[in-house]
Amino acid sequence: MLKPFSDKVAGVAPSAIREILKFTADPEVISFAAGNPAPEAFPTEKISEISAEIFRDEPINALQYSVTEGYPKLRKWLEDDLRAKNIFKDGDMLIVTAGAQQAIEVTAKILCNEGDVIICENPSFIGSLNSFRSYGVNLIGVSMDENGMKPDELEAVLKANPKTKFIYTIPNFQNPTGNTTTLERRKEILALAKKYGVYVLEDNPYGALRFAGEDVTCYKELDDNKNVIYAGTFSKVLAPGLRVGYLCADAELVSKAVVGMQTSTVHTNIWAQILAYRFVTEVDFNEHLKGLQAIYRGKYQRMADALKVNLPDFVQLSQPQGGLFIWATIPEKYDMNAFCLEAVKRKVAVVPGNAFNADESAVSHSFRINFSTPTNEQIDKGCEILGKCAKELLV
Amino acid sequence: MLKPFSDKVAGVAPSAIREILKFTADPEVISFAAGNPAPEAFPTEKISEISAEIFRDEPINALQYSVTEGYPKLRKWLEDDLRAKNIFKDGDMLIVTAGAQQAIEVTAKILCNEGDVIICENPSFIGSLNSFRSYGVNLIGVSMDENGMKPDELEAVLKANPKTKFIYTIPNFQNPTGNTTTLERRKEILALAKKYGVYVLEDNPYGALRFAGEDVTCYKELDDNKNVIYAGTFSKVLAPGLRVGYLCADAELVSKAVVGMQTSTVHTNIWAQILAYRFVTEVDFNEHLKGLQAIYRGKYQRMADALKVNLPDFVQLSQPQGGLFIWATIPEKYDMNAFCLEAVKRKVAVVPGNAFNADESAVSHSFRINFSTPTNEQIDKGCEILGKCAKELLV
Repeated sequence: MLKPFSDKVAGVAPSAIREILKFTADPEVISFAAGNPAPEAFPTEKISEISAEIFRDEPINALQYSVTEGYPKLRKWLEDDLRAKNIFKDGDMLIVTAGAQQAIEVTAKILCNEGDVIICENPSFIGSLNSFRSYGVNLIGVSMDENGMKPDELEAVLKANPKTKFIYTIPNFQNPTGNTTTLERRKEILALAKKYGVYVLEDNPYGALRFAGEDVTCYKELDDNKNVIYAGTFSKVLAPGLRVGYLCADAELVSKAVVGMQTSTVHTNIWAQILAYRFVTEVDFNEHLKGLQAIYRGKYQRMADALKVNLPDFVQLSQPQGGLFIWATIPEKYDMNAFCLEAVKRKVAVVPGNAFNADESAVSHSFRINFSTPTNEQIDKGCEILGKCAKELLV
Repeated sequence: MLKPFSDKVAGVAPSAIREILKFTADPEVISFAAGNPAPEAFPTEKISEISAEIFRDEPINALQYSVTEGYPKLRKWLEDDLRAKNIFKDGDMLIVTAGAQQAIEVTAKILCNEGDVIICENPSFIGSLNSFRSYGVNLIGVSMDENGMKPDELEAVLKANPKTKFIYTIPNFQNPTGNTTTLERRKEILALAKKYGVYVLEDNPYGALRFAGEDVTCYKELDDNKNVIYAGTFSKVLAPGLRVGYLCADAELVSKAVVGMQTSTVHTNIWAQILAYRFVTEVDFNEHLKGLQAIYRGKYQRMADALKVNLPDFVQLSQPQGGLFIWATIPEKYDMNAFCLEAVKRKVAVVPGNAFNADESAVSHSFRINFSTPTNEQIDKGCEILGKCAKELLV
């Protein structure tokens, strides 16, 4: 080494989930640790057909350099779709990114100086938290109840931190808790954002994967003041390997995000953008989403039933109405990390909850269970093992 | 707007080339302004065939989340290929990025604090310069002669700037000048990098597109001290829309780059990575490269001949042995920007040279001519128009 790393990245470690996932390289390990969409949800035949169409109709378009903002037809479709939902508004702009993660990363880059503050739900999605950490921001977690971030605590943090740039939230079927922020709570949080002059960065990867209950109005829909920045993605509704997401917000802000993207990926893989566009226009996309919802409803129910049968009653389980995750919490007197370690030794991987905290060293008594990736057989067997672990360790 | 943009991106403007490219949206404008590979160089049929194979053989692999480091088989192929060329060395690591641009961007991110210094060739590739600017670094250009950066000037800059993190160079058929740094000069520059304890970031997108002369040893080959960071890409040898590039350097540094990528794109589009791997292993890749070289040799010759016929002798033209660009320089008494503006009004677009300077406000008497994108007919007609412009304005 000639020179040390930049201050902003020096302390950023690889995702703790990836450390757990190393165990899952062992084919005998049943992984409840991933966040992958169910592979059976991929419309592989239709995608294959569309890819062939692209190379028949417009191979050069799919292979040549393209514009940073994104494939014009896909942008237009997304704008129309989000306008109909009152998410895309007059004065807004939408660009296509390499997954919602790049939308989130570039937002942090264009808004935050080192030492600025980002407020997040505690716990929250580690990929985003690491993205924020990689810009040297001060990350402050606000604890949640089942309705979302606690407004009193949020206001206290906002008051104490005038350098706050935005509040990061996953309002629907949050990663990792599975909880959905209620409409009333969203209104309170948005009012606080307005009061303190900060943005809300609304990350909505799972919104379309609702398998129970009713949709809740987005922050972006509630916003009349350019306070909300909206990140969406095709990762959970089409395929994550495509790396196609999007960023929608006030045009001035998104124009700066274009400059940020231009200096890194230049543009998102253009074949994947054309493919996404053709998919949403060639199939009945709402029917496709209903199919996905049915798959996830089934997987969730299987997991919830198996956990109920096997785990002691004192293990609290969140009850998501969509998405990919259940959040399990054990009584404070037990050691959650020891439990997770024992589980993985017995070939079932879950993710220890502290990985999702703004302060990773803070004690957690929770762990995250994914129900989208394992097969039904793996769900049944894995829950049986978790149950045995619990009965032996949590006594 | 609620809050101003971060200091590091506030001053970064969209690429000046893109402003010129707006004129080229007019289908009547002949563009010598782009940097696109020749579309006839894309092996579209083979790519279409491989894409169909991927969806037949391994659709889930091509659509599911993948590892940040890159598709293992592609990494292995690249490592072996670069090891045979003495570019990949023991203790090195290679990752797949979204084009070489992301490799360059993430290198700046992991190494540079705001206020650090990056030294670049003056002029240099605007995409990289904007990438560096977007991290708030102090960008210092070192002037070049036809052999590369001037060592005396480079040493003076290194001496005066102890916060220098790396020297950024495009040693082969440089963008925009088309010049290749000589072996002797590479050795001098690398020795200076070692003496002052800074990295060399070697950006080699065009190296395989040599259509005349002999290959020159890479900086990375010459390096025995982990001083060199190497960025490569499939953009110019397969297709840029795929956004597949790579970063090769000491494993400790590249491991940190993985963390940087994990927080932005997560991983590079996996279909494109599998496609690149299958392409290089299913075709005779060296024969494919020879085919590309023949295409570019022909296009360069056509452009060089047409420029010679049409432009006054006092317009100096660089004589690239590969790549995509010729650098034209007019005598100092003339106004280069006025010339470029008149040319675009007459429907021929070239890029004014100041766009490529570390200090964009510095006067330039040069402009960049691309010969890979226009057709032969466009080359002939465009050069005729440039010639008329020159005869009327440069008097």
